[in-house]
Amino acid sequence: MKEFDLIGRYFADGGHQRKDVIIGIGDDCAVTSLAPNQQLAITTDTLISGVHFLEDTPARSVAYKAVAVNLSDLAAMGAEPAWISLSLSLPEFNDAWLEEFAAGLYELTQYYSVQLIGGDTVKGPLSLTITAQGFIPPNNALTRSAAKPGDWIYATGSLGDAGAGLDILQGKLNADFTQRDFLVNKHLFPSPRVAAGTAIRRIANACIDVSDGLVADLQHILRASKCGAMVHVDKLPLSEALVSCVGREQAIQYALTAGDDYELLFTVNEEHKGILETSLSSTNVKATCIGQITGQANKLELKLNDVPFAVPEKGGYLHEF
Amino acid sequence: MKEFDLIGRYFADGGHQRKDVIIGIGDDCAVTSLAPNQQLAITTDTLISGVHFLEDTPARSVAYKAVAVNLSDLAAMGAEPAWISLSLSLPEFNDAWLEEFAAGLYELTQYYSVQLIGGDTVKGPLSLTITAQGFIPPNNALTRSAAKPGDWIYATGSLGDAGAGLDILQGKLNADFTQRDFLVNKHLFPSPRVAAGTAIRRIANACIDVSDGLVADLQHILRASKCGAMVHVDKLPLSEALVSCVGREQAIQYALTAGDDYELLFTVNEEHKGILETSLSSTNVKATCIGQITGQANKLELKLNDVPFAVPEKGGYLHEF
Repeated sequence: MKEFDLIGRYFADGGHQRKDVIIGIGDDCAVTSLAPNQQLAITTDTLISGVHFLEDTPARSVAYKAVAVNLSDLAAMGAEPAWISLSLSLPEFNDAWLEEFAAGLYELTQYYSVQLIGGDTVKGPLSLTITAQGFIPPNNALTRSAAKPGDWIYATGSLGDAGAGLDILQGKLNADFTQRDFLVNKHLFPSPRVAAGTAIRRIANACIDVSDGLVADLQHILRASKCGAMVHVDKLPLSEALVSCVGREQAIQYALTAGDDYELLFTVNEEHKGILETSLSSTNVKATCIGQITGQANKLELKLNDVPFAVPEKGGYLHEF
Repeated sequence: MKEFDLIGRYFADGGHQRKDVIIGIGDDCAVTSLAPNQQLAITTDTLISGVHFLEDTPARSVAYKAVAVNLSDLAAMGAEPAWISLSLSLPEFNDAWLEEFAAGLYELTQYYSVQLIGGDTVKGPLSLTITAQGFIPPNNALTRSAAKPGDWIYATGSLGDAGAGLDILQGKLNADFTQRDFLVNKHLFPSPRVAAGTAIRRIANACIDVSDGLVADLQHILRASKCGAMVHVDKLPLSEALVSCVGREQAIQYALTAGDDYELLFTVNEEHKGILETSLSSTNVKATCIGQITGQANKLELKLNDVPFAVPEKGGYLHEF
C-alpha cells in the first residue's frame, strides 16, 4: 500500500456516524439520503498554504478552519450541516501532522454531528478543498439578494478579531498575552455561526458570512439586492481584546476591512426586529444592529457619531498576504 | 473587482440549467432539491498539474478530464449525474486558458445535463477539485463489496489505451498518426461510462471504474468483497490502435497496469449474464467478459491461453509520473 493510500486511514471512519449516510468512505461514491421536505445546501471552499493560511499554521488549525469556513457558508444560508467531503493535497507523508490534522477536522464535525463521507488524498502542494452539505426547508434559504430598503443590518459576535490575530502572528502587531491568546485564537479557530444561521432563517431577509471583511461582504449583499446601506461604525461590535490592543480607531478599521471573522451579517425588517432577540437567545450568540439598508443601489455610506466616515479602500484581504 | 473574482465569470451561468437547482452559482451555497425515492451519490476528485496531468496539458483537456473522472465515479456507483462544484486554483490569470478551460468543462456537463452549481477560484498552484453529485434509487448502488464467488467479471470498452496515450505524449512510445490520435485522445478526453453504469445497476453485483489500472482496481473489489478472481488476459478488450502500436504482449501489460481508462469493471452472476447484453445494447458500450470471481479472499490469478501468467508488480501508475 502506498503512502498516499495510507493517508485515508486517518479519516477512515468519517467521525460522527449519521443514519442518513448509507455508504460512507471507501467506495467510488458516498450514498446519502435526504429527509422529505428538505432541500440541500452545498458549498465548496479551498484553502491553500501561503494564500489562505500561513505556512507554519498548526495542522489542527488548518483542518479546523477549513471545516469552519464551509460550515459558515451553510450557516449563512440558514442550513443545518450534515456531510462533508475532503480533498487533501500534501507534499509529504507526515504521521504527526496527519494525526493533528484529523483531530482538528473531527473537533467541529463531532460538535455539529457532521459526517465525513469521502474525499481524495493526493501528493502535491499543501492545500485542501472541503465540500459541505446541509439541509434547509424549501423557500427558507437566506440569500444575498433578499435585502430590502428599511431592513436593519445586524452582525453576530465581534468583528476584526481574526484580522488582528493574523497581524499578531505575522509580527505586524504587538499584543499582551491575554489579547494575543484571544485574537490569535479567533484567527486560527473561528466559530461558524451554525445555530444562529438556523435560528434566523424565518426572521432575516438577506444573509452572508463575513469572510472577506465587513465592507466587502456587505457590498456583496448590496450588489445582489440592488440596495444601499448606511452603517454606523460607532455601533460595530468590537471585542475588548481588540480595542485594548489597537485602540478604538484602529479597531474600527479592522472591523471594516479584515476578513476571516466568519460572523453572520444579515438584514431584518422592522416587523421581525422584535423576535430576533428571542430567537437568538437559545444560541448564545449576540447580534448587534449596525445600520440600515437604503434604496440607493450599491451605495454604502458610513457614519461615526452621525458624521460621514470614509469607506476604506481595501475591502477584504484574501489572496493578499 | 479582483482578477480572481473575474475568473468566476467564465462559469457564471453554470451551463446546462436544471429545474432541481433552486439557487445556483453566486450565493454562499447552492440550493438543490432531490426527487422523492432517490438517494444521493457524492464523489470528490482532485487533479494536480504535474501529478495527475502533464504540465503542458491543454486547458480543454484539464477541465474535460476532471469532469470525466468525477462522472466516472458516479457511473461506477450506477448513479445518474446531476450537479458539480468546481474549485479551481490557478497561478495566474490567463484569459485564453480560462476560455478553453470553461469550454472543456461544459462539453461533458452539457452532454449529460449536469449543472455547475458553485465553487471557488483561488490563486495557487494549478489544480482543481470537482465534487459531483448524482441520483440513485434506494438499494441500487453498485458497491465494490458486492462481488460473489462465481460472478463473471466484465470490463467496458478497451483497456490500456490511455496509458499508451500518456507514454506517447511523454515521448516514451512511438506511434503513427492514426494510433497517436486515438490513444492520446483516450488519455486527454476519457469517456465516463454514465449510460452503462445506470444500465447495469439492477444487473451487476460489484462495480468500480478503472482509474488506477485493471489489476489495482480489481484488487479493490477483491479486498472489499473478500473474494478472489481468475482473469484470462487473452480475453482483455484491446483496441486495434493499441495492439498495432505496441504489439499484443505489451498491449496486455498496458491493459493490466495502466490507469486513467475510466472503463467500468463489474461482476455479474450467472443468472443475470443473459440480460446484460440486452441492457447495454442501447448504450453503444460493449462489455467483455474477462474472467470470474473465486472464493479465495484477495487471490488474483491471471492466465494466458489457460497457462498461468504473472500478475504485474506495478498496479496503477497514479502519482508516479
